[in-house]
Amino acid sequence: MDENKMDIIASLAKRRGFIFPGSEIYGGLAGTWDYGPLGVELKNNVKREFWRASVWERDDTVGIDAAIMMNPTVWEASGHLEAFTDPLVECKTCHTRLRADHEDELTRHMDEHRAKGESATWTEPRTFNLMVEARLGVIEGEKDTVYLRGEITQGAHVNFKNILDTTGRKLPFGVAQIGKAFRNEITPGNLTFRSREFEQMEVQYYIRPDDHEAGRWFEYWKERRRAWYIDLGVKAQNLRFREHAPDERAHYARSAVDIEYHAPFGWKECEGIHHRGEWDLTRHTRYSKTPLSYFDEETGKHLTPWVIETSGGVDRAILFFLLDAYREEQDEKGRTRTVLALNPRLAPFKAAVFPLLRNKLALVEKARMLYNNLRSRTARDWMGPIAWDDRGNIGKRYWAQDEIGTPWCITVDFQTLDDETVTVRDRDTTKQERIHAEELGDYLADKLG
Amino acid sequence: MDENKMDIIASLAKRRGFIFPGSEIYGGLAGTWDYGPLGVELKNNVKREFWRASVWERDDTVGIDAAIMMNPTVWEASGHLEAFTDPLVECKTCHTRLRADHEDELTRHMDEHRAKGESATWTEPRTFNLMVEARLGVIEGEKDTVYLRGEITQGAHVNFKNILDTTGRKLPFGVAQIGKAFRNEITPGNLTFRSREFEQMEVQYYIRPDDHEAGRWFEYWKERRRAWYIDLGVKAQNLRFREHAPDERAHYARSAVDIEYHAPFGWKECEGIHHRGEWDLTRHTRYSKTPLSYFDEETGKHLTPWVIETSGGVDRAILFFLLDAYREEQDEKGRTRTVLALNPRLAPFKAAVFPLLRNKLALVEKARMLYNNLRSRTARDWMGPIAWDDRGNIGKRYWAQDEIGTPWCITVDFQTLDDETVTVRDRDTTKQERIHAEELGDYLADKLG
Repeated sequence: MDENKMDIIASLAKRRGFIFPGSEIYGGLAGTWDYGPLGVELKNNVKREFWRASVWERDDTVGIDAAIMMNPTVWEASGHLEAFTDPLVECKTCHTRLRADHEDELTRHMDEHRAKGESATWTEPRTFNLMVEARLGVIEGEKDTVYLRGEITQGAHVNFKNILDTTGRKLPFGVAQIGKAFRNEITPGNLTFRSREFEQMEVQYYIRPDDHEAGRWFEYWKERRRAWYIDLGVKAQNLRFREHAPDERAHYARSAVDIEYHAPFGWKECEGIHHRGEWDLTRHTRYSKTPLSYFDEETGKHLTPWVIETSGGVDRAILFFLLDAYREEQDEKGRTRTVLALNPRLAPFKAAVFPLLRNKLALVEKARMLYNNLRSRTARDWMGPIAWDDRGNIGKRYWAQDEIGTPWCITVDFQTLDDETVTVRDRDTTKQERIHAEELGDYLADKLG
Repeated sequence: MDENKMDIIASLAKRRGFIFPGSEIYGGLAGTWDYGPLGVELKNNVKREFWRASVWERDDTVGIDAAIMMNPTVWEASGHLEAFTDPLVECKTCHTRLRADHEDELTRHMDEHRAKGESATWTEPRTFNLMVEARLGVIEGEKDTVYLRGEITQGAHVNFKNILDTTGRKLPFGVAQIGKAFRNEITPGNLTFRSREFEQMEVQYYIRPDDHEAGRWFEYWKERRRAWYIDLGVKAQNLRFREHAPDERAHYARSAVDIEYHAPFGWKECEGIHHRGEWDLTRHTRYSKTPLSYFDEETGKHLTPWVIETSGGVDRAILFFLLDAYREEQDEKGRTRTVLALNPRLAPFKAAVFPLLRNKLALVEKARMLYNNLRSRTARDWMGPIAWDDRGNIGKRYWAQDEIGTPWCITVDFQTLDDETVTVRDRDTTKQERIHAEELGDYLADKLG
């Protein structure tokens, strides 16, 4: 299954409404994706789980939400205009452009030419800046070039003084953020894995400038972020740490470790943990002439904190959650059941409600009432939406919900009319239990809690 | 107070961490804003309330989340490249650029010149397109011009077939979306009211192409959206409907009504309700050659649905919630108490926990434990974050929380050590009640429910 698993996930994502190619009816726009009715719920769930774990549950972090467009000097100061580049080569035979540092892809491409008896050489690598330019202003010829942020990171650092002034935080403390970033990727691909428009989720964690502190917090965040993915459904054996060699580290990083995920297309970066040292704050202090320092009450002196950063991609996290949730099973009759065993907290629908038969008015009315009540309850308590289905037979409805990850299916049958009990069928075990309709809200709250 | 209320709100927003000017340390970037630690919570609360009301609580809507960058033909088809323009004039005396259709501002500007005995004339109006261009691609000279979406609307319409195919929805049904849009506004200003980067919240509601249906749903959505703002704290007397004259309607609108808010700077658009007719679906069908129609089972024919749109601005909604929540009160000693009487569902912190005295270890430890427990509970149940404060005296802490809208302040005092009860002080009434610490989670859940 592994070789075509990306195709299977792409097909499921398109067919059931998770992810559509961006601007699809116009032939698309490379490296952009639209989240459909199920995808937007999954995405919102991933983002709110990140926010809960990174802001609400902690007493040492705050959040921000900075603008995508920033004063261009930000990117001069941050080093991105100079150093945020990828090396590109062009195949001399077919003029395809490839990343010079992606050796596997390069080798595969050239092998294909050789197999056809064609020449397989490429140009010298050139570096290209990834920042996407935009034109701001009213009158043509007077517009300013600005950049769409290439990382959301700088929004925290340029606001360091604002955040200190308004929160009075003491070191160590973190600033969490979720938001869109843009890059002129040379080779967008593998579904949402590498896109030109994508969403990041980050914590910039400010610490005392001290090697022991840095080492301790670096380890802490590595483990913490790895545990977050596992808690939400990524298989532990599909994650590993990989330390960057000095020559592959970003210009701002003193040390860097990737949490890598074992995707069908290889071990790939899932999230980066970076020791950014004093890079950002000193650079912005110099370029903006605004001192971004911290007054240390213990010593009575100002110091420049160091930064440990955790930087993950929302879109690729979603892709990895989908990949690890997907499974096919044979039932007792040899039929293949497709299950998206998403963590219930991530599942787009928390439950589905069915009348056993669609042509029995009493059943449909009862089920509809129950659906309305349950939907109100799960919306009120921020659990999420509930699905309704009265098409086909019950078996088909179960399977349709299994494929989109709905953890529990609730069926109203004739017994319900007598005693107000319903069946609740579990996605993973396919086992059913009978519970009182009035208990459904608490049942879901308990399971999701 | 009214005349300088915008200054008061801007100052409070900056000082307490709601809203900072974007890229502030670099002198800013006109029309961009960063949400600080309190602002991001308020913004997320507004967005999730919109999502709950527009998707989770309804059985006739679904959500999507489309990309900001779309294939440029989308904007040709939608009419935005041709017609999404504002008229600009330039003052011949000081070369300030102004909107020709904002007569009040124009008159005020010219009156100022006249008052100084200066000439007060302006150039003929010229129209300027509001779409922000970006450059996508790797190699300079080969980059493509794309546009940052000027409205999030088109993400729904270009996905109409995808949404129908994946959800099997029957008319009428709505597609809700929240996301960033960008416009080269001539005169960004009034804090976040008119920005170049801003967030929209919309429902595109597809109906049968029938005047009676259109009239009914138009009225429904007008009332529904007005009620949403009032439910969350905008004063009813500060809202009114204003119908657009035929010559001010957008190019896609058959009829349009603004929900206007009585801001300190005049009656201003809060949200637009538009009858877009078949404009979007027929234009995209023609330009993409993809039929975007709906199969009507009743008649056995394909039809092109009409669209009733509700289009609000997240940032301006936040501004209006802040303006209507703000009040100053004299206490019995004649001191001025500032209260941000936000709906508790919107408040950044749901509660604050204090030890009565910061130098009594037993009180601090007890309060800290209670704070940790309550924070876990409110995070688990998606209520929101909890504040901690042990600085200054209790009175100052109350006032500091009043100013940022925290609805309840919980104080651990000596009696707590005896009987596990705490005081809960209400932001609006300033009244206190004594409740058992174990009941705090349910107390907040009940109040917020």
